[in-house]
Amino acid sequence: MQRIAMLGSGFIGRFYADSLQGYRSRDTIVSIYSRREESARKFAEDYQCHHYTTVMEEAIAREDVDIVCIALPNNLHEAAVLLCCKHKKAVMTTKPLGRNAAEAKRMLEAVEAAGIFNGYLEDLVYTPKFIKANQSVQEGALGRILWAKSRETHPGPHSEWFWDIEQAGGGCILDLGCHCVEITRSYIGKDIKPVEVMCWADTQVKPIDAEDHAIGLVKYENGAIGQFEVSWTFRGGLDLRDEVMGTEGTIWINSFLRTGFDMFTTGKGGDYIAEKAESNSGWLFPVGDELNELGYNHMFMDMFNALEKGVAPKETFYDGYVVNAILDAAYKSAKSKIWEPVQLDIWRGQTGLSKESHLVSYDQDHYLVKEEMTHYGAKKLILKHKTTGKITEQLLN
Amino acid sequence: MQRIAMLGSGFIGRFYADSLQGYRSRDTIVSIYSRREESARKFAEDYQCHHYTTVMEEAIAREDVDIVCIALPNNLHEAAVLLCCKHKKAVMTTKPLGRNAAEAKRMLEAVEAAGIFNGYLEDLVYTPKFIKANQSVQEGALGRILWAKSRETHPGPHSEWFWDIEQAGGGCILDLGCHCVEITRSYIGKDIKPVEVMCWADTQVKPIDAEDHAIGLVKYENGAIGQFEVSWTFRGGLDLRDEVMGTEGTIWINSFLRTGFDMFTTGKGGDYIAEKAESNSGWLFPVGDELNELGYNHMFMDMFNALEKGVAPKETFYDGYVVNAILDAAYKSAKSKIWEPVQLDIWRGQTGLSKESHLVSYDQDHYLVKEEMTHYGAKKLILKHKTTGKITEQLLN
Amino acid sequence: MQRIAMLGSGFIGRFYADSLQGYRSRDTIVSIYSRREESARKFAEDYQCHHYTTVMEEAIAREDVDIVCIALPNNLHEAAVLLCCKHKKAVMTTKPLGRNAAEAKRMLEAVEAAGIFNGYLEDLVYTPKFIKANQSVQEGALGRILWAKSRETHPGPHSEWFWDIEQAGGGCILDLGCHCVEITRSYIGKDIKPVEVMCWADTQVKPIDAEDHAIGLVKYENGAIGQFEVSWTFRGGLDLRDEVMGTEGTIWINSFLRTGFDMFTTGKGGDYIAEKAESNSGWLFPVGDELNELGYNHMFMDMFNALEKGVAPKETFYDGYVVNAILDAAYKSAKSKIWEPVQLDIWRGQTGLSKESHLVSYDQDHYLVKEEMTHYGAKKLILKHKTTGKITEQLLN
Amino acid sequence: MQRIAMLGSGFIGRFYADSLQGYRSRDTIVSIYSRREESARKFAEDYQCHHYTTVMEEAIAREDVDIVCIALPNNLHEAAVLLCCKHKKAVMTTKPLGRNAAEAKRMLEAVEAAGIFNGYLEDLVYTPKFIKANQSVQEGALGRILWAKSRETHPGPHSEWFWDIEQAGGGCILDLGCHCVEITRSYIGKDIKPVEVMCWADTQVKPIDAEDHAIGLVKYENGAIGQFEVSWTFRGGLDLRDEVMGTEGTIWINSFLRTGFDMFTTGKGGDYIAEKAESNSGWLFPVGDELNELGYNHMFMDMFNALEKGVAPKETFYDGYVVNAILDAAYKSAKSKIWEPVQLDIWRGQTGLSKESHLVSYDQDHYLVKEEMTHYGAKKLILKHKTTGKITEQLLN
Repeated sequence: MQRIAMLGSGFIGRFYADSLQGYRSRDTIVSIYSRREESARKFAEDYQCHHYTTVMEEAIAREDVDIVCIALPNNLHEAAVLLCCKHKKAVMTTKPLGRNAAEAKRMLEAVEAAGIFNGYLEDLVYTPKFIKANQSVQEGALGRILWAKSRETHPGPHSEWFWDIEQAGGGCILDLGCHCVEITRSYIGKDIKPVEVMCWADTQVKPIDAEDHAIGLVKYENGAIGQFEVSWTFRGGLDLRDEVMGTEGTIWINSFLRTGFDMFTTGKGGDYIAEKAESNSGWLFPVGDELNELGYNHMFMDMFNALEKGVAPKETFYDGYVVNAILDAAYKSAKSKIWEPVQLDIWRGQTGLSKESHLVSYDQDHYLVKEEMTHYGAKKLILKHKTTGKITEQLLN
Repeated sequence: MQRIAMLGSGFIGRFYADSLQGYRSRDTIVSIYSRREESARKFAEDYQCHHYTTVMEEAIAREDVDIVCIALPNNLHEAAVLLCCKHKKAVMTTKPLGRNAAEAKRMLEAVEAAGIFNGYLEDLVYTPKFIKANQSVQEGALGRILWAKSRETHPGPHSEWFWDIEQAGGGCILDLGCHCVEITRSYIGKDIKPVEVMCWADTQVKPIDAEDHAIGLVKYENGAIGQFEVSWTFRGGLDLRDEVMGTEGTIWINSFLRTGFDMFTTGKGGDYIAEKAESNSGWLFPVGDELNELGYNHMFMDMFNALEKGVAPKETFYDGYVVNAILDAAYKSAKSKIWEPVQLDIWRGQTGLSKESHLVSYDQDHYLVKEEMTHYGAKKLILKHKTTGKITEQLLN
Repeated sequence: MQRIAMLGSGFIGRFYADSLQGYRSRDTIVSIYSRREESARKFAEDYQCHHYTTVMEEAIAREDVDIVCIALPNNLHEAAVLLCCKHKKAVMTTKPLGRNAAEAKRMLEAVEAAGIFNGYLEDLVYTPKFIKANQSVQEGALGRILWAKSRETHPGPHSEWFWDIEQAGGGCILDLGCHCVEITRSYIGKDIKPVEVMCWADTQVKPIDAEDHAIGLVKYENGAIGQFEVSWTFRGGLDLRDEVMGTEGTIWINSFLRTGFDMFTTGKGGDYIAEKAESNSGWLFPVGDELNELGYNHMFMDMFNALEKGVAPKETFYDGYVVNAILDAAYKSAKSKIWEPVQLDIWRGQTGLSKESHLVSYDQDHYLVKEEMTHYGAKKLILKHKTTGKITEQLLN
Repeated sequence: MQRIAMLGSGFIGRFYADSLQGYRSRDTIVSIYSRREESARKFAEDYQCHHYTTVMEEAIAREDVDIVCIALPNNLHEAAVLLCCKHKKAVMTTKPLGRNAAEAKRMLEAVEAAGIFNGYLEDLVYTPKFIKANQSVQEGALGRILWAKSRETHPGPHSEWFWDIEQAGGGCILDLGCHCVEITRSYIGKDIKPVEVMCWADTQVKPIDAEDHAIGLVKYENGAIGQFEVSWTFRGGLDLRDEVMGTEGTIWINSFLRTGFDMFTTGKGGDYIAEKAESNSGWLFPVGDELNELGYNHMFMDMFNALEKGVAPKETFYDGYVVNAILDAAYKSAKSKIWEPVQLDIWRGQTGLSKESHLVSYDQDHYLVKEEMTHYGAKKLILKHKTTGKITEQLLN
């Protein structure tokens, strides 16, 4: 059983609380901190939480708190983490870890110096679909991974602070790109070094200083490519899709808008209210169990199981730092318009990898270009001669 | 916290155990009964269960047991239930409740006489998709419900006893139809009386005595129609779909084969093994979190929450009995080839309902047949005169 | 090149004309008959047709007419067909052929006595998807066909005459069921005799005399089952789906609402008008090329190619007659509530078939119940002893 | 009626012929040229073509030829075009127009100097789905277009010459990217100038000199972004998808792998052969009418209708030239790793555009950041103060 201090009573804090206290959980939130007392009190009531406060340190320092869960705007993460270090409390932080790699690095170094448990709350690598898909990838179902893309777009965040670049630290790249980068990095291999980033970003629709639409490519040391597509300008709901290509297969995941649940309603039948949709009528695409589909349940299960076993969870501050470093390069590239190197002062994975050869031998003299089934049922080979380079066809029965 | 005695260590017992002890559950299995000692011991090891036995009553009677979970072949449910009554233990039973309504009625009367908590483990009305869909239906999103269909087909069950009509009590109607009937009954309204059933059934493919394919219609007192399509001869995996039509909308649910997770693999990339699929290569459609998608988690949550609050769960032996009564009528109809009345000695819902009128007035003199948008953007009305019956068209701007 | 006289200038007549004169066709409509002069004149203008008339026989009798296309309300088919017989003109008629089998039979006998080319315009067995699917079925991709279902539901027809039972001859069974019956009959085999029908029908929503919702089962001599689901009460657009199950596979076809074309629009961007949808905003599912997707192009191609070669097209009046006979049994069953025999005075397919055996031998002593792959990669057999009936499991590596 | 000389009897030539002579076409191929006599003769037989030759000019120069259709490897386009100019024959050429913009420009200038009809056979902007989607975009259904992506990936081309960089001029960028670029350009607006390109390309799998995987971004003068994803390394079939995002909506098109046609087959039922799939068993996704779905029918219809009316078709050599210019920039960028300008010596669209403002006023003092529906049914506004930049929330009932 874990006793949690929750920092932040907004949209994400409530999502976390719903998950933490959902199902038949043995874990419970014992303290809630919010900047606004009214909000703290309301949260405490809603979640049967015995203590609430507007003083952050008070929530963290309590004796009955086993772990602190940071669900605050991005600009407040570092201060909260440092208080956890001071009081030697296990800590887990919402995404992104920092507004940039420098912040993230300081947090990483602080928790490691303090020797406290640290978890990075990247829920989207804990979705049931991702977990099963990534397991298939690990087992080799797709062969060598060539490309992984993650797309998250929607009509913009709910809370006002996201739209303020000082508090948020950036726009949709930071808000949504952090998910996409960790998803694709996980498919490609978390021990494979990201080396450089190319990114396009623009403010196409919203009257804000940050970007509201961006596309980025992340090149890894072994030649694999990660891609992110993020936007706050998408119309139609929450579009959350991943794709992975390997030499032996492909995976397509749709996590929100097309999950096998279609509903049409004229809207005349009652006071029906559609969640996360842009309308209450017409064709709607609800999600069955949002908390589970978005990974919250499996994420907290991993965090607490790890904490109880005294091991690191799947996602730590180190991962949060790597993500921030990749996003820093993306921001830089969006301005410089060239591929920017990923600056990783701390790197704990493999180094010195090179691209796997694309020269697959068919026989002593030839490389295999393609093997295919013709429409009349025969097998056709396209070969390339190793020395002359000549391309030839061959039909097999 | 609930302490469970599990009766049965087979396929479904293990599924239940995975769910009961999954996530960060506070509940635990304290005793396992199996007819085969080896199987009981293996189960006890796998699920850290301290007691195992080959004597059913021993597992039930233990003092540390709060609730008994029956995961046995159909022909053993009644004996197990009676032992729970004898020892005044709360009980929950896998589906179908009995092999027929007579058995189910005896079980229902026994648990009510004993005054014990009774739950009917119909997981498919606890799937996240069903829960949200049914909530929308309750809120009126589809208007008045006209028709609800549920389809469950696959290439046949895993365990041998299903194929033996004495143990199972029937074929795919009993095995799969029990799900479909309760799903559609829930959409139409559990207090609406099922009145008659028409069913076709046949043994088309399997060398068995029971049916391996059946289609049935269930008419309700208010004129709504439930439909089930069940088969053990389907090729392609587990096909699990529901559809509901109302006067104001429709819902389509695909619970297994198309849930937003597509994978292609040549099968050459490693030792990948596809679950529940008929092949390990080609296009495969995995489900992210099967336990959750199939409703087990929400089902046990409801059972235990109800038990702790001293109220009835959403699904009780009474529901199991109603389902058995409908299936009895289906079996009878498959033989008699006529609509057979549903025999319900016990009925606790509404009675005396009649069909809602299909005569919607448009104005004093006309009924409204249809209102539609023309392709040039005008509104077109088709009206029927109340006395002459004449059909006319009218264009509105 | 074929010169066509079109009878009827309504919704379906225009659809036909769009197809007949679409692409780079060498065929052309030379005469149009409509009951209303204004409508005939408008049609003639729109389709560059040199002759229009309000006298049916005038259109048919013209020397420059090679073939007559009947696109009239159901109650006018017979009179039009008889005029074609009188003038010895090739004729093709929209669906259903008659309002009942008696009418259809008279038309069939008339055209055959007159020796004229006769085509039955059942477009939905000419859709590109159906053609390819049925070809796969013929090639054995699904093994022995067990069940075929076709579903057509929408919010009701556009033209007023459909709602008048005297002109239409029936409700959605006749209007939509004629499609479904011919589709499923084609999958099962057009030479397999339909023997009996069970049908539920009701008027649930519309203020009309005919049925607005029905479900029917058609049993074939070889044990296969056809199913139709038809309604004029569906909300959400035009739902047009087929499913086929065989011993070796399955086919699912969605012909209209989910064809790989999804659009979301707030409706604020302009004067966009969605066709066949119930709204101009939200998620919409357009079809690329409706004429082609609904089979019109391939249908007329078959008709004219057959006419030019002097052979019968794929669909003739005989097929229309068989369909009417099946629908007659459906109407009868909806009233009698029992399975009704299909009355086929004229039958040109196989006779005396019986159900294929479901007893597949595994070895000398056993039948094979099921072969499956376990989740740990082994092959499992479930067998039934031929004499004792005992079910056993066997694991193979 | 048009009489066509076909140059090239390979895969694409046969596809064209199937379309040209499909349905009830009034057009016909009167001469076929192939480098190999055997191939020319076979083609002539298969398509009832009265003349075949191995001398290209012979086919072009014939008096009975109205238009020449070039279906040759990329390196032979220019010579063929010049012969058409010499003989003043109307010409249409398969994609890409040239191996690079220099070649394309010479061809464009030659046909214009000769004053002959010229068509660019970019079939994928003629698919039924694209045509309807683009019409919706033109009508404003999506508002202002922000981004358009096209993806075409498969396991590599069928014919050997594609794999030889000298004949093909490049790899998947040239082969597949030409489609994607014209599709996205059409959604954004063909009169909007493409200004610069960023591209990643690599040879990840195939033993060839050209790229087998690439991703590119194309920036347009009005700030819109086009994206292409192309590969010859995809496993799973032909993946052909487009997406478009605008300020008021989105469109998703799947043209091949998910079009509402799903089939499962064990492969044991017969000699079934799946086309374009990587296997003959398991879940397969056929396309109903490939020629129509891939746009060939509508493309030739536009070409011939334009030719007969004496106007330009939708796609001309000028479009082919623009596409080549964009692809040239992509190749350059893949090497230089920076955004490369698109060199367009010839540009006939708008110039001097700038990005549309993202500052949408809500009232005198505020910009509108977002308007959303809360889950309790109220309308929430997020506003930004025009001078202070402060972000605030406001709830409306």
